[in-house]
Amino acid sequence: MAQTDELKTVGKRTSRLNGPDIVTGRIGYADDVQVPGMLYGRILRSPHGHARILKIDVSKALALPGVVDVVTGQDVPDTGFFAGDEVCYHGQKVGAVAATDPDIAEDALELIQVDYEVLPAVVDPLMGLAPDAPEAQLGASSQVVNGKRLPNVTSHAVTETGDVEKGFAESDAVVEYEYRVPMFHQTYLEPNAATARVEANGRLTVWTSSQGMFGIRDGLAEALGIPQSQVRVILQEMGGGFGAKNRVNVEGPAAVLALRTGQPVKVTINREEVFMDGRPAPGCWIRLKTGARKDGTLMAVEGQIVWDGGIEGRSGNARRLLGLYKVPNVRIEAFSVRTNKPVPGAYRAPGAPQTALARESNIDMVAHKLGMDPIEFRLKNAIGKGEQPGMDHDWLKDTIRQTAEKARWGRRRLKRNQGMGIACGEWQNGSGPTHADITMRGDGSVTVLTGQADITGVHTVMAQVVAEELDVPVEKVTVTLGDTDTVAYTSLSAGSKAAYSASTVAREAAENTREEVLKRAAAHLEASVEDLVLADEVIRVKGSPGQSVSLAELAEAAIGSAAGPITGRASLGSLKSHPSFSVNIATVEVDPETGRVKLIDLVAAQDVGRALNPMLVEGQIQGGAVQSVGFGLMEGIQYDDQGRVLNPNLLDYAIPTALDVPDIQTVIVEEPCEHGPYGSKGVGEPPIIPGGAAVANAIYSAVGARVTEVPTTPERVVAALKDADSNNR
Amino acid sequence: MAQTDELKTVGKRTSRLNGPDIVTGRIGYADDVQVPGMLYGRILRSPHGHARILKIDVSKALALPGVVDVVTGQDVPDTGFFAGDEVCYHGQKVGAVAATDPDIAEDALELIQVDYEVLPAVVDPLMGLAPDAPEAQLGASSQVVNGKRLPNVTSHAVTETGDVEKGFAESDAVVEYEYRVPMFHQTYLEPNAATARVEANGRLTVWTSSQGMFGIRDGLAEALGIPQSQVRVILQEMGGGFGAKNRVNVEGPAAVLALRTGQPVKVTINREEVFMDGRPAPGCWIRLKTGARKDGTLMAVEGQIVWDGGIEGRSGNARRLLGLYKVPNVRIEAFSVRTNKPVPGAYRAPGAPQTALARESNIDMVAHKLGMDPIEFRLKNAIGKGEQPGMDHDWLKDTIRQTAEKARWGRRRLKRNQGMGIACGEWQNGSGPTHADITMRGDGSVTVLTGQADITGVHTVMAQVVAEELDVPVEKVTVTLGDTDTVAYTSLSAGSKAAYSASTVAREAAENTREEVLKRAAAHLEASVEDLVLADEVIRVKGSPGQSVSLAELAEAAIGSAAGPITGRASLGSLKSHPSFSVNIATVEVDPETGRVKLIDLVAAQDVGRALNPMLVEGQIQGGAVQSVGFGLMEGIQYDDQGRVLNPNLLDYAIPTALDVPDIQTVIVEEPCEHGPYGSKGVGEPPIIPGGAAVANAIYSAVGARVTEVPTTPERVVAALKDADSNNR
Repeated sequence: MAQTDELKTVGKRTSRLNGPDIVTGRIGYADDVQVPGMLYGRILRSPHGHARILKIDVSKALALPGVVDVVTGQDVPDTGFFAGDEVCYHGQKVGAVAATDPDIAEDALELIQVDYEVLPAVVDPLMGLAPDAPEAQLGASSQVVNGKRLPNVTSHAVTETGDVEKGFAESDAVVEYEYRVPMFHQTYLEPNAATARVEANGRLTVWTSSQGMFGIRDGLAEALGIPQSQVRVILQEMGGGFGAKNRVNVEGPAAVLALRTGQPVKVTINREEVFMDGRPAPGCWIRLKTGARKDGTLMAVEGQIVWDGGIEGRSGNARRLLGLYKVPNVRIEAFSVRTNKPVPGAYRAPGAPQTALARESNIDMVAHKLGMDPIEFRLKNAIGKGEQPGMDHDWLKDTIRQTAEKARWGRRRLKRNQGMGIACGEWQNGSGPTHADITMRGDGSVTVLTGQADITGVHTVMAQVVAEELDVPVEKVTVTLGDTDTVAYTSLSAGSKAAYSASTVAREAAENTREEVLKRAAAHLEASVEDLVLADEVIRVKGSPGQSVSLAELAEAAIGSAAGPITGRASLGSLKSHPSFSVNIATVEVDPETGRVKLIDLVAAQDVGRALNPMLVEGQIQGGAVQSVGFGLMEGIQYDDQGRVLNPNLLDYAIPTALDVPDIQTVIVEEPCEHGPYGSKGVGEPPIIPGGAAVANAIYSAVGARVTEVPTTPERVVAALKDADSNNR
Repeated sequence: MAQTDELKTVGKRTSRLNGPDIVTGRIGYADDVQVPGMLYGRILRSPHGHARILKIDVSKALALPGVVDVVTGQDVPDTGFFAGDEVCYHGQKVGAVAATDPDIAEDALELIQVDYEVLPAVVDPLMGLAPDAPEAQLGASSQVVNGKRLPNVTSHAVTETGDVEKGFAESDAVVEYEYRVPMFHQTYLEPNAATARVEANGRLTVWTSSQGMFGIRDGLAEALGIPQSQVRVILQEMGGGFGAKNRVNVEGPAAVLALRTGQPVKVTINREEVFMDGRPAPGCWIRLKTGARKDGTLMAVEGQIVWDGGIEGRSGNARRLLGLYKVPNVRIEAFSVRTNKPVPGAYRAPGAPQTALARESNIDMVAHKLGMDPIEFRLKNAIGKGEQPGMDHDWLKDTIRQTAEKARWGRRRLKRNQGMGIACGEWQNGSGPTHADITMRGDGSVTVLTGQADITGVHTVMAQVVAEELDVPVEKVTVTLGDTDTVAYTSLSAGSKAAYSASTVAREAAENTREEVLKRAAAHLEASVEDLVLADEVIRVKGSPGQSVSLAELAEAAIGSAAGPITGRASLGSLKSHPSFSVNIATVEVDPETGRVKLIDLVAAQDVGRALNPMLVEGQIQGGAVQSVGFGLMEGIQYDDQGRVLNPNLLDYAIPTALDVPDIQTVIVEEPCEHGPYGSKGVGEPPIIPGGAAVANAIYSAVGARVTEVPTTPERVVAALKDADSNNR
């Protein structure tokens, strides 16, 4: 195994190997799939937030020349792909059309007549919490809380430690705020597309864009009531997912249409559909009360969180309201509420930006109230080495300190109406089955086959790891994604898992290959394995410089040998989790007249254990920071009171453009994690967590306005300024 | 390991798993490949058998709207894909055009002006052998034989054992004949097609139809002067190859055009091009003298063989002139001659049908001369158990006897002008690197990944083997072909190797998986591996019927476990060779007036060790027999004296149609081979060997005419009848 103090390839700034293919658009995306005889599918969607379907008449659509099939939920009720007799959110799938031409399919949608009876919609999760709220889904399950039936509540949980009453009683400063976060969207660049074909032997092949092929396979098999073995899923390059492409979406209608027509069908959706039905992040309402002693010791946190769980009433994670600080007394009550909105999905560090907004704002306000520096306050309460499972170092404190150092916290001269704000985020890497199969070509180059979808350059990192262990140039390693028929079950590329797990398995597979190389070389050189050194693509006998064989020569000879080509492989299931931390310091300037916030710069630091590829890690940090800026300053899906989406397009749903993104200074904090590959930890999710909160804290620091609802639009800043003003009077 | 006396799946008549996809045309062939932005390539070919290229003007072609590129050998001289300043066979590639439309590409070919100076052509290999013959290729290497420079000879070898003079002196009957075989064609159904694309990172991807992806990859890399790692070859389903699709053909022009234009290019050729430039079987001239004692003991064989080696002067195999009989005194002189014809390729049992014609005709004539029954004569001289390496049983004699039995040899009442002829063939299986990677899905079904191209149902047989060893229904096994980036080097599906080697490796991989299953089950059931029984998709503890876990349950649990999914794999390089035998008895009726030969029926027997899938083996035997009937009765590429192909189409080059094929009765001879998987041996090649010779012997038996040149056209039969008549006078 390569020693981490003498790495040649791991830890280097290797460009993403398929980068040129991606930026030139030559790589194959899901919508690039062309299958002979393919039909084009389009989806009919609900124009209402909540309505009863009285009648559907597809006859006119079916009569349109070129239309091959029209399917609705009435035809395939068990799949769950389409609404039954009730639509529960704007944009919900009602049916689909397959036609010989995409324009014909679009036209056919307009010929489907659906009679709706509009029903009251649950839009605001807090209102949906009420016992007398209308049902977001008629007759759906409900929960009884404190003796009251709450029709839209899907889960209710209380987390309690210590005695919060006592904690607050012992506090010298207590703050309490209510926060609101709307549903916000991953806004991945590539709208979903999938092509399905029924093979002559009855098996279903699906080409799609997803973070994991096996989840799509199993989801389709379950919905269609067929064995997993009857479905093959082949992933194309994914044009962004961020957690949204983890589950079956357009694959369902494509599969149903293909099964019904016997012809291949490609379903592609547009940006509007993505916004309406693309598994955005859940919104929430949070009330949070935080108390501390005047020495800065956090004493108690008490609060409620109500998750806007969309039509399935999905719950987010409430634990992350605490996470990275030691708090002796805690009580958190969490509700998940069913609303007339799409089912939320995972969006990069699911639930963490939302809870960080509340936690980090409160932390700042307590510090201010105590007259303490927010960084000192955080350092005092931050969890340290050994204070949480997997917390093997003072990762958090180091990261806070390095962020402050980089941002020149307390040393920077700010103008009037400028301010700096800090916020912290915490994540634990996931893990799951993954594997790598290695073969050596006769020219000494190396192939790696994996089931791990390539997001954020994970294949590049795998190539670096394999190159490191076999001591070949990284250019000689080709990493290829298999499909559900060719590789073992591999879990999603998500959850800050992909590079962490896949690098571990790539390293094991490369070690396995290296052993095989040395075994073959020992026979070839008539030496013992212990006497061999593999370096620079040559295997040498120690002390006999003349006795050597090149890797290429050995690999070529192996192909013709009785034992066959040199190969290696490794599989693993789960790995230990470790926390990793991100800290942002934002500097803003606020125009107190207009409420306009200008983000001047952002220092984004992250504790990564060890950066396997600093360039890719910086890319992760930058990308996450940009998304957190969007979350904090501009994003949010807007619904009217009937649950209709008001801004399902990139004109009305603003995301940061190059002009909105300030100078982002990244800091990679490296204190190796003993259990990660080469000391690394998961890096994908932490960067998105603290940015929104850091901006909110910077606004407060600049002009004393505490904005508690994101996005922090000018209107909200002006309102908060008025509040602050009236409180100061 | 499953015991061969209690097999559940192996040895059963499982239908070819992708059969429905093949017969419905839904499976993807090379010409079905569609790549966005693809150009269409067409090839300019030599209209002459031999000529000097004086000048090429591509300007008019390049000026045609839609033409993107025109390339000739002058542009890419080092690749060898196109002629340089000399064309050496009719149909040789001179250049290629890439255009936005295939018709435009065709039109552009006609606008390329090539000035040729026609040179003398070497068409007949015997004439080419002469010291004063014109050079088939100007200035090419030559051989000196017996002090004379033979300008077109590329190899000369003499095989000698014992003393043939003495042998003939001790013989009571000696016969000597000259045989002629033209080049004949595999006539695969699917004309060659290949699509090449240069990825943005500079790597070359090629989709093609071939018997082996790695040979194409390495051939392209070598010709283009780039590393193997820069080429990825993805095989499509192959619509017939029979040895012809073993090497780079249209892949070369496709790659060159793609590299030059930067756009993907698909090159497809038509039937005429297939006939002119598709690597047919080599023709030959054979003079063979055979002597035996009156007790039927073969005493001596002496002869010469001159291979028509096309422009590379390829040599065929002379050893097979002997092969299956014990002969104490032998002298064979073999020449390979360069002629103005395409480079011959391998055609199913390369060289064996040609040599069998001479050997088996001579054997028959000696027997007749001695007044012995041809079968008795063969049985007397046939090699038996232990008389050749790998000859572990009396396979040949058993097969001769079973064929005779089935054909009711000597017991059948024949009409006037009817006759029966027997002939034998022998082959040794090849071997080469192959491997199988197995994974278990959560539903207990199984995936197999291999690099072994699926010809003749080899994937089906692999599925049967895996199903057998894991005791699951064969329907639950999916076999998938990888590509050069995803699997280890795998040699051609050719040489009677594919099922033999791939079944061996599939069995090992399945055993490896089974061990893993039992290991996981032992932990799951808290039992020891020794106490477990895997049967019918359930693992049970012996003696504790209640203690069990289903394969699906175990596989699903494994996915979530620390160790990850259940997998298994095996690789191998080479395996021992064993001879296997085919014997045909043909019954014909000859019209002595017209010379027309009607093949009434054919008994085709084959020694297969054990039939892994009797239906597929029968398919092999039937297919080979049909091809041997074509070889014997109708096929052959005709050249004029300038080397121009006269019959490059399926009207003028006749192959057997359903109307020409008689009742073929197959006999599977099973005497297990201890070293083959489940006792099996290679089965692909033997069936084509003896049919042509059997027909010739049957004609002699019917009307006393010895036809020594194939195809045995009516003209040749009439001529042979006249010869026989004059000899009898």
